[in-house]
Formats: sequence, structure tokens, C-alpha cells
Amino acid sequence: MSDKIFPSWPDTAPQLIEVAAGRAPADTVIRKGIWVNVHTREQLPDHDIAIKAGRIAYVGPDASYCTGPKTQIIEANGRYMIPGLCDAHMHIESGMLTPAEFARAVIPHGTTSMFTDPHEIANVLGLDGVRYMHDEALMQPVNIFTQMPSCAPSAPGLETTGYEISAEDVAEAMNWPGIIGLGEMMNFPGVANADPKMLAEIAATQRAGKTVGGHYASPDLGPDFAAYVAGGPADDHEGTCEADAIARVRQGMRSMMRLGSAWYDVESQITAVTEKGLDPRNFILCTDDCHSGTLVNDGHMNRVVRHAIACGCDPVVALQMATINTATHFGLEREIGSITPGRRADVILTSSLTELPIEVVIARGQIVAESGSIKVDCPHYDWPASARGTVHLGHELTAQDFELTAPAGANSVTANVIGVVENQAPTKALQAELPVVDGLVEGTDEVCQIALVERHRATGGVTNAFVSGFGYSGKMAMASTVAHDSHHMIVVGTDRAQMALAANRLAEAGGGITLYKDGEELALIELPIAGLMSDSPATDVAAKAQKMVEAMQACGCSLNNAYMQHSLLALVVIPELRISDLGLVDVRTFQKIPVIEPVQ
Amino acid sequence: MSDKIFPSWPDTAPQLIEVAAGRAPADTVIRKGIWVNVHTREQLPDHDIAIKAGRIAYVGPDASYCTGPKTQIIEANGRYMIPGLCDAHMHIESGMLTPAEFARAVIPHGTTSMFTDPHEIANVLGLDGVRYMHDEALMQPVNIFTQMPSCAPSAPGLETTGYEISAEDVAEAMNWPGIIGLGEMMNFPGVANADPKMLAEIAATQRAGKTVGGHYASPDLGPDFAAYVAGGPADDHEGTCEADAIARVRQGMRSMMRLGSAWYDVESQITAVTEKGLDPRNFILCTDDCHSGTLVNDGHMNRVVRHAIACGCDPVVALQMATINTATHFGLEREIGSITPGRRADVILTSSLTELPIEVVIARGQIVAESGSIKVDCPHYDWPASARGTVHLGHELTAQDFELTAPAGANSVTANVIGVVENQAPTKALQAELPVVDGLVEGTDEVCQIALVERHRATGGVTNAFVSGFGYSGKMAMASTVAHDSHHMIVVGTDRAQMALAANRLAEAGGGITLYKDGEELALIELPIAGLMSDSPATDVAAKAQKMVEAMQACGCSLNNAYMQHSLLALVVIPELRISDLGLVDVRTFQKIPVIEPVQ
Repeated sequence: MSDKIFPSWPDTAPQLIEVAAGRAPADTVIRKGIWVNVHTREQLPDHDIAIKAGRIAYVGPDASYCTGPKTQIIEANGRYMIPGLCDAHMHIESGMLTPAEFARAVIPHGTTSMFTDPHEIANVLGLDGVRYMHDEALMQPVNIFTQMPSCAPSAPGLETTGYEISAEDVAEAMNWPGIIGLGEMMNFPGVANADPKMLAEIAATQRAGKTVGGHYASPDLGPDFAAYVAGGPADDHEGTCEADAIARVRQGMRSMMRLGSAWYDVESQITAVTEKGLDPRNFILCTDDCHSGTLVNDGHMNRVVRHAIACGCDPVVALQMATINTATHFGLEREIGSITPGRRADVILTSSLTELPIEVVIARGQIVAESGSIKVDCPHYDWPASARGTVHLGHELTAQDFELTAPAGANSVTANVIGVVENQAPTKALQAELPVVDGLVEGTDEVCQIALVERHRATGGVTNAFVSGFGYSGKMAMASTVAHDSHHMIVVGTDRAQMALAANRLAEAGGGITLYKDGEELALIELPIAGLMSDSPATDVAAKAQKMVEAMQACGCSLNNAYMQHSLLALVVIPELRISDLGLVDVRTFQKIPVIEPVQ
Repeated sequence: MSDKIFPSWPDTAPQLIEVAAGRAPADTVIRKGIWVNVHTREQLPDHDIAIKAGRIAYVGPDASYCTGPKTQIIEANGRYMIPGLCDAHMHIESGMLTPAEFARAVIPHGTTSMFTDPHEIANVLGLDGVRYMHDEALMQPVNIFTQMPSCAPSAPGLETTGYEISAEDVAEAMNWPGIIGLGEMMNFPGVANADPKMLAEIAATQRAGKTVGGHYASPDLGPDFAAYVAGGPADDHEGTCEADAIARVRQGMRSMMRLGSAWYDVESQITAVTEKGLDPRNFILCTDDCHSGTLVNDGHMNRVVRHAIACGCDPVVALQMATINTATHFGLEREIGSITPGRRADVILTSSLTELPIEVVIARGQIVAESGSIKVDCPHYDWPASARGTVHLGHELTAQDFELTAPAGANSVTANVIGVVENQAPTKALQAELPVVDGLVEGTDEVCQIALVERHRATGGVTNAFVSGFGYSGKMAMASTVAHDSHHMIVVGTDRAQMALAANRLAEAGGGITLYKDGEELALIELPIAGLMSDSPATDVAAKAQKMVEAMQACGCSLNNAYMQHSLLALVVIPELRISDLGLVDVRTFQKIPVIEPVQ
């Protein structure tokens, strides 16, 4: 793994040797801390760390012999010195932030390495979008490794993405300097059925000597699971119970246990280590998806490690799960993940291994955060116009675009309705009797309209259907260009004129989320990059997201985390009913079904 | 790491998936054994293993769903199923056997993967010799990975090797299919002093994403050690005490603990795990050097694992140290080292985890040994004439070539004498008063002659000196073309005519070891390949080696393992006094010294 920006160990070795031998002074010495050694699982008081050119040159009881008059001294004062934390699998887009702003948000929490799968932008901008993310990632003062997205579209034949990712794209990306492996192979039925495209992507990754990310989202541990394992994915983060974690590790995969904004899969799985006593080396912590609000208010990998410790895990074992275990998994154990010579000097100072206050964060030898405040610049990539103008509507929308015509002469119809379930990703496939007014099907108090507005190719296509469960009332509409996984635009509303207003507003803003009520915009989150991300600070985005929640509540929605429900309504890989640019899809059967049931 | 012979996981994945899914039958199923899981550190009874195309397709409670009428069934009958054993660092030449014959000797002991550094042949034949070893290694039915030798000559300026290894050679070899990393970087002072050639070799290896083998043979854990670690070696097998092992692992290296024919470094270091409780993942077992007699009579890696268990190590932890820990170290954890899907099907059946009888050995899905008997062919490489004719004397030697002329008029002289110490590699720098007869310096009852006969370039050069401690009497001479590390010919004798006989005999035989007494050859080990290895079976070589020991005893030598002492007398990197083609070398000062002290 070469990095176009940060010099490699062999590039730096001559300088490191001079410092370690005492023939040249270190740039920086961290004095007198407790060395948390993730190789031996020890806590070793009274140790010093000498740093040169961003890498660790020496760790031992006394670095005074490699300290010169210009050496910067950082006093650990008996605090713990732990390796910078690694997030083993995550999607930066989930924070609705660019890599730069995501980094700026998480560095004060002690995250110095991330393994990120830009799956969302791949759906919007294809390989070019992945490259932009990858390039901005490499500009950051911390380590952001890119997992090449494997599955765009997620559901071939059931949706149309902005671009597709091919096996050739995967093979090409394996040569980029920041690519660390293949992003989660979500098409697990495809692997189990030996789908040639999926196997070609895996093969390209394995032949490049890189790590194949897994995603096996099924409780079935029978032959389908065995076939998926035989196909080559090296990890999985979709386990939800102890048996899942144990099964994966026994089969030679690594179990990634996640605590995201909405994922709570650590407590239920970490008992494999804390109670069953399994060798912990193959268990890894990650976040998968974090909203900006979580990053601003709760933390990032520090939150996950604290949680693992609160679940009864030994603190140093929990730290191993967020440092060396991750580094080893990705073939980077001599580059990151421990405080030892040659590695990037990514070190956190903390006064408690259980509370884990992140007091000082050092990345590549530089103090990047102190007491929760960022101390460095996180440079922005010069995003091209093509990435900033991704909302292509065929024409300005009007209320007419959202009309559903009833069969001639009908006074009411039976409609298939997407039923939102609070706190769950799956929906219910419901049916409702809906009234017909002036030849158009109308919603009710419980059922409102949903539309999937095509935005990638300016086809002007609008798929209209019905959804229930949000509780909206009055004349309102909410629209979002974050619409997993193909990221067209989802508009939900009680009033077609408001729906048109909201959709057109997002076209004007270049993407984001908006809510209109009675002709007025109550809240807006601008997401100008690919319609997915903001290049504003996380605090701004989190504040706007909070305002959006309040606006949804003002329209009668009392669901927890309802914005997430909105953004998942086009996710045609999770049952039961979803909307796509191709129509209404029953994900139980992977068949399109009509919105309005034909009269018998 | 691609392998030119054995198809890769991605090549095989479509077949593995079909078997695991139950759509195609396995080639072989191992039924109802205790699955020793080195990922979780569990013993799981009643498991089956399904194998296809030499790789594991499925491991689970019941493989009957992937068993067809032509599937070969191997009944484990409740025995333990453990991964094939890995030797993490070793020199095949130490067995005086070719890779093929070495493999044939160790397969019945359960060794299915070796990481071998052909350092000896590199000194004789350079990069070509390494390639021959590498190519024969890839022909075997087990996994022999080659570590590219780093240090030929071992002591630049103090000896002349047949060929030298350059940094360019290292860079070139990194592209060969069987090269897994750099062989032990013995020039530890060079690394600590940032020697450009040594750093270039390390850099070439690191840039190729491969593992840099270490060799830090010093008890000094101060700045020299720190500088060596900063230089990049990833492991070390030269530790001899618990503190050595702990220091290496704390610094992010792996500690390789060896039990060779003459190395006993496991018991003294494994307490780091068994008593100090360190995380065992970074501790690895290896042999380094095994004589053919050890292989024939005692075993190979099974001997090391048994010994580790006898030292108090948990059996599954000891097995991890000889399987998955090794695989992970070399970046091969998804290829070998565990019984899990996708990996090469290298499996041992044994009825006891503590006694470790090696009952059935399966490599790449094939039964390769049963009850101690080899069941497969180990193909021989067609060694070229240049590799078989490596003893180039400038002329037929006579007694005169071994004469040491005294200073004119001297009746006796003070000579610097190499003092052999039983059971130790270091020698003593002694002095002795030696008589002069007819102008020539003669030996005594305690001191006999030693000669280093140049054999690589036919210079006709003979370096004469004196050695004590063997206890030889009568008229005898012993000669060997195994003469670490430059592998000229060492002749030790009490009689110059016998010395000439012995030297000429080895020239005729193309290399080996011979012993003459009173004009008759008492024993001979032919080593026609590079003067280092036999392509006869290990049993033959071991029998001849035993006869050699008896011949040495018949000449009055009662030292334990005296042949090894003989072969190390030119090792100009270990103190105190050694002989080279350039003269007598005081390794304490790295200076040449005179054989006969000048008269004051």
C-alpha cells in the first residue's frame, strides 16, 4: 500500500535509524506515559516515544538520548498512550459530510484511521465519484483508506443507478494508492450462486493482495452461508447475535461488530469473547454509519470502544479490536495500529482506559486535536462541477407530475402501500382503500403520497405510490436526494403542489433535504456534493438536521429517526415493499407490483 | 503471492462455492473429527471437512450434503483435525538435503508449509542457486516459500564468496512466484548504521509488500537494538531468553522461538506466554536448522510443538504458534494455517493433542503421509551441471600446500590458535607455542592444522592455520565443503598428506565431507549439489552422517556434535577467531591477524 502523500517506512528508515541510534534528534518526544502495548496486551508505565518525520523511531524507557534542543516535548504526565483508533468499515456519506469535514469531526474523538466504502457516491457518479472521495481522503492529516464499492447497483434489474460499477472498474481501482480492498460484497445471493461478475470483483481484489469486505445479512448459517464464505469475503459486519459472530470467526472471517448511529450490534456479539472466551484477535469494532449528530454529540470510535468496555470487555482487548486487529486484517500491521517503531505516529493521550477521554490526539507525529478541538486543517478537494450538479430533472415539476390516475369510473381503489415501521429498516407491504377525486387517487389521514423522482439522467421520470406510518397532516412535502442505494430523489407528501415545490427546490440547491409546509420551506440541509454530502462543518450539518427533525415533528411525524426511514424507502434489497425508478417493488419476491390493484 | 503450480483461491472459488452450496460433490470429505480451530482457539467435536481441487470448501457439522458417489471419504473417527504445521524460518541446506528430499523427510512429521532461506547456496551459486532451490521448492506437494537471502557475503571484506547478492538481486527476486520475503537480515550492525545496501534490500522487500526476516544476535537491547527495529525487520529468531522474546514483541516484531538440532530457544522464551501471560499471537515456532539425523529420528515441527506443550504451553496455543500465527506473519492467513474455507487443504489427523502422533497428513487435499510413511512423489529438479560441479581447486593439492613456513632460524613459534569450545558456536582466540621441524611449523598433541581451501574460483588459494579442541590423534584429516557461510572447503588434520588426500577426494566427489586416516577413507558424505546437499533420501544421509561421527571418534574426537564445530570454523561473523580465504580473522575486532606472531 503506497500513499501518494505520506512517505513510506522505507523512505523514512534512514532517518528513523539515526534517531533510534541516538545519532540525530527526534522531531517530537512524548515523555513519561503508560505505553498501552497492543502487541503484548500490556500496560507499561514510564515510557517515552520518539517521533521523526511522522513515524515512530523509538519507544522505550528513556528517549532523552534522542532528544535535541529543537525536539518538541509533549508531556504525557503519566497518562495512557494508546494507538490512534481505527474504524474498520464505514461510509463517510452517512455523515452527510465530505471526507475532509468527516475527518475534521472525528479527529478530536481520536479516530486516526478509517476504512471507508464510498458506495453511495458510486451509485451517483460511478468510478469518478469514488476517485474524488479517494483523492480527498488522501489529502487528510489522518489515514483514510478506501474500499472500492462492489455493488452498484445493489439490485440489478430493479433500479437504475447514475452509474454502474463493473469488475473492470474494480480491477482498475486496485492500482490506486489509497485503495485497501473491496467494499462490502452485499450481493450475497450472487456470491452463493457463483455470479461471474461478483466473483470477478472478488478475484481482482484477491489477486491484488487486498482484503475483500463482506456483508452477509441473513440469519441462515446453512449452505448459503458456507457458499458465501467459500467465495472469499474476509470479514462481515452484518452479524447481530453471538452465534453470528462465532460462526464467522470459526470460518476464518473476521467479525466486525458495529455501533453506528442506528446499529447496536456490539453488546449482542462481544459475549463471544467476554463470556465464551474465544481468542479475541479476529474481532474488530466499527461504526458502519454515523450521522453528523452522533459525531457532534456522542463521538465516533471512542464511543464504540467505551461501549465495548462497558459491555465487560477488557479495556486493552477492546483497544486491540479498534487498532491492531483492524490493521492486521487489512495487511497494515506494520503501518498503523500500534505504538511501535516504523509505524505512523498516531497516538492518543488519555487519563482513563475505561472512560477514555480523548485529551490529545497526535497523527503522523503532529498534534491534530486537543481537548476536543481540532488543531489542523483538513483540506478540501476541488470538487468538479459534475460532482456539484447531480440533480438532473427533465423539467420543472408541477403538481401534475405527482398525480395517480384512477381506473375510469372508479370511486375508490385498492392500493399497495409501503408501511413504515418505527426503528426498523424493513417495511411492511400493506394495502389500503383509497378515495378517488376527479379521477385521481388521493391519500387519507394515514396514507400519503411518495414519489421517486429520477435525477441522474434527466428522464423526467416520476414513480408515484403510497406510504403510511409517518403521521403527516396538513399540506406538506419532504424531499431528499439521499435515497439509498441509487440515490434518486424521494418525495413524501400530503399535497402534490408542496411535493413539486420541494423537488424543484432540491434541483435548485444541487441536492439535499427539504421540507415544505403550506408553501414555505421549514428546513433545508444543502448537500451539494453528489446530492449526498455537505462540505460545511459537521456542527452546521447536525444543527440543520436537528431543525429538519423539528420540522417533521411540526408536520405531525412522531417517529423516532424518521429521516432515516425516508431515505431508505428506495432500498430495493430490504423487504418488504420499496419504490424505485422502475416502479413499486416487492422485495420478498424481487418482482414489480402495481401501485393500484386492478379491479377483479 | 501467486504460485505457478497450485491454482489460487480465486481460480478455484467457483468450484468451492458449488460444493459448499451442495450443488456439486466434494473430491474428499474428512468425516467426524474434532475441528481444532486456530482462529477461535476452540476444539469442536463432530465436524466434517469437504475438499475440492485441493482447497477446503466447507467445514461444518455435516458434509453429507456435499458428498457424492465418487467422493473419497477419510474417517477421522473422532481424532483431532489440526492444520498442517508451518516452519516459519529454516534453511533446507542444514539437512544436507535438496528441497525435494527435505520435503520427503518432513511430510510424514506433518510439516506442510516451510519458509526457507537458501542462504548457503546463495554464497556458492548466487541468484541462480536461489532460483534452483525456489524452483524445486515449487515442484513439491507441500508449500515451500522462499525467503530471498539478504547477506551473501555475511562479512563483506573478510571473506570471498562464490557469488554476492546485491540489492538489485533482491528486487528482482521479489517478482518470483515463490518468494515470500527477505531472508534473515544478519548484518544487524549494518542496519543500525544505516548501511545503504542493507536498507535497499529491506526497502525492495517492503515495497513489494513482503516480510523482512530479522536476525539480531546480540543481548544488547539498547540503542543498537532500537535502531535495528527502526530499520524494518519484522521478526527475529535469535532471542535466547524471556526478556529477548518480550522485547521483540513489544517493539512490534514477531518472536520466532526455535528448536533446531542444536538450538534450544523455546523453553527459555515461551514463559513470556505461559508465565507472563502475554498475548500469544506474535509468538511463532520454527526450527532454523535441522540435521538429517534429527529429521529421521526425532521429527520436525511436530517435535517443536510437542516440546512447547511439554514446556507448559496450552496445546491449541502451541498449535497457533506453528500455524495461523506464522501464516498471518507472512500475509498468508487466507491461504494456509487454518482449516477453513478457501485455504489449501493441509490437515493432520492425530489422536492426541499433547503427544501429537502424526497419523495421517493431508496436503492440498491429498493424503501425503500415513503412519510415518510418505505416500507421494517429491519431484527432483534437473539440477544443471554448474550446480553439480562447484568444487573448483586450482590444482591437485599436495602436502606442500598445507605447509606453514617458520621464520628463518626459529626453533618454535607463538601461533594464534582457534580454540573450539564444546557445544558453543563461539570459539576462543588462543595462543600456543608450536615446534618448528625442518623449517615448518608443526602441530602438537592438542593443536592440529586447519586449512581453508578456496573452491569457488579455482584460485588454488589455501589459508593455513591452527585449531585446538578436537582431540584428534594419529595421521588423519577431515574435509568439508559445508563451511559457513562462504562455503569454501575446510580441512582439519594432523597430517598434511592426509589433508591433501581429503581435499582432492572432495574435488573428485563434487563436494561433501570426508575423513581420511592413514591413507584410507573412513567415511564420506557426498553432497554433489553445490557441495552442500545430497539428492539422496534423508535416511541415507543420516546413516552416512552417523558413520562420519563414528569415524571422528575413531580419530580421537570426543566432542559432542563435532561436525558442526568443523563446519562453523569459517563463520567470520561469530567471535572470537575464524579462518577465511583472506586469512585468520579476529571477529572481536573484525581484523585479520597473523597465524604466527612476529618475533618481538
